[in-house]
Amino acid sequence: MTCGLFISFEGIDGSGKSTQARVLADALRGRGHDVVLTREPGGSPGAEEIRRLVLTGATDRWSAETETLLFTAARRDHLEKTILPALAAGQIVITDRFADSTRAYQGATRGDLRGIVDALHALMIGREPDLTFVIDADPAASLTRGLARSTDELRFEEFGLPLQQKMRAVYLDIAHAQPQRCIVIDGAGTIDAVAARILTAFDAR
Amino acid sequence: MTCGLFISFEGIDGSGKSTQARVLADALRGRGHDVVLTREPGGSPGAEEIRRLVLTGATDRWSAETETLLFTAARRDHLEKTILPALAAGQIVITDRFADSTRAYQGATRGDLRGIVDALHALMIGREPDLTFVIDADPAASLTRGLARSTDELRFEEFGLPLQQKMRAVYLDIAHAQPQRCIVIDGAGTIDAVAARILTAFDAR
Repeated sequence: MTCGLFISFEGIDGSGKSTQARVLADALRGRGHDVVLTREPGGSPGAEEIRRLVLTGATDRWSAETETLLFTAARRDHLEKTILPALAAGQIVITDRFADSTRAYQGATRGDLRGIVDALHALMIGREPDLTFVIDADPAASLTRGLARSTDELRFEEFGLPLQQKMRAVYLDIAHAQPQRCIVIDGAGTIDAVAARILTAFDAR
Repeated sequence: MTCGLFISFEGIDGSGKSTQARVLADALRGRGHDVVLTREPGGSPGAEEIRRLVLTGATDRWSAETETLLFTAARRDHLEKTILPALAAGQIVITDRFADSTRAYQGATRGDLRGIVDALHALMIGREPDLTFVIDADPAASLTRGLARSTDELRFEEFGLPLQQKMRAVYLDIAHAQPQRCIVIDGAGTIDAVAARILTAFDAR
């Protein structure tokens, strides 16, 4: 019997989650597992096109409702074309962001949309990761790290420290509400130190 | 008090609905009304971009579920940016296609998605036209007319006569279920003859 494993990494920008997703992928490959490393928004050719459509142009180009629909369309494509086929083949899927990112971002910017975000997820996605690592990091330090990166997709970073603080709070709320799925990892320290915490927590599960 | 009027034209491809939408717009302008003529998919700059994303590339590029999400995102943008502001300004909005087109297309190709289509509409759009003209036309003749048009967006025409017949049936079902909103217009005859039927029905309302 093949049985895949679906893992997501979540956390505010600059928390180190993308790096840690890659490090865990490498570690599990080193143990002989077949690992697919992917990311959102994007993760499949169609979803990457939707990502470009959403993240280019003026920040207020799309309303929060339209943006949520577009991200849900991208997630549906990512799920159908990349995640589910890999899980069906018995692979481990590690994604840098999944639905919690939408919950955290909309929760921090348009809290009144939480009902819509949850209803859309239930209707069109209907799946959570088996395991989610929430990398918890200091918002001020993470913001500095996020802004230092060279990127032309500054959408997520341009709202500053108050947004980072609110998103951190939503991530911790989600982790608190779903302890069977979410593990909060202290993001302080070196890459190796954080990676060791993640691997220890992974093995404990 | 300003009070706009929201009218949609629906019908299978080649039924003449786009022509009739334009003719009614001209007739109402001739009476001194301020009319916005628009269309779906599209009708606002963002929705036109989503239209291009959906309608270019291979036919099976998006699943029916993802396509429905993308069309709903386009409709939300069209509603927010074009339709609602015009109605708030007291204008008459005439749109070539609205939500019934999604119901007819998905109903004819993926009938099992009707629940999802309706739930998405209720959650993210939540608005019907005040008046819908369903142009009822012979599927075989309409298909010939549709195929004769020069277009590089053949997505809706390429499924042939069985699809046209099924879509016609769904349109008639919708009109039968919502007689207070929908008026079925016989699409046979000259443009002027059909236009006269529409104007008579409009004035009767």
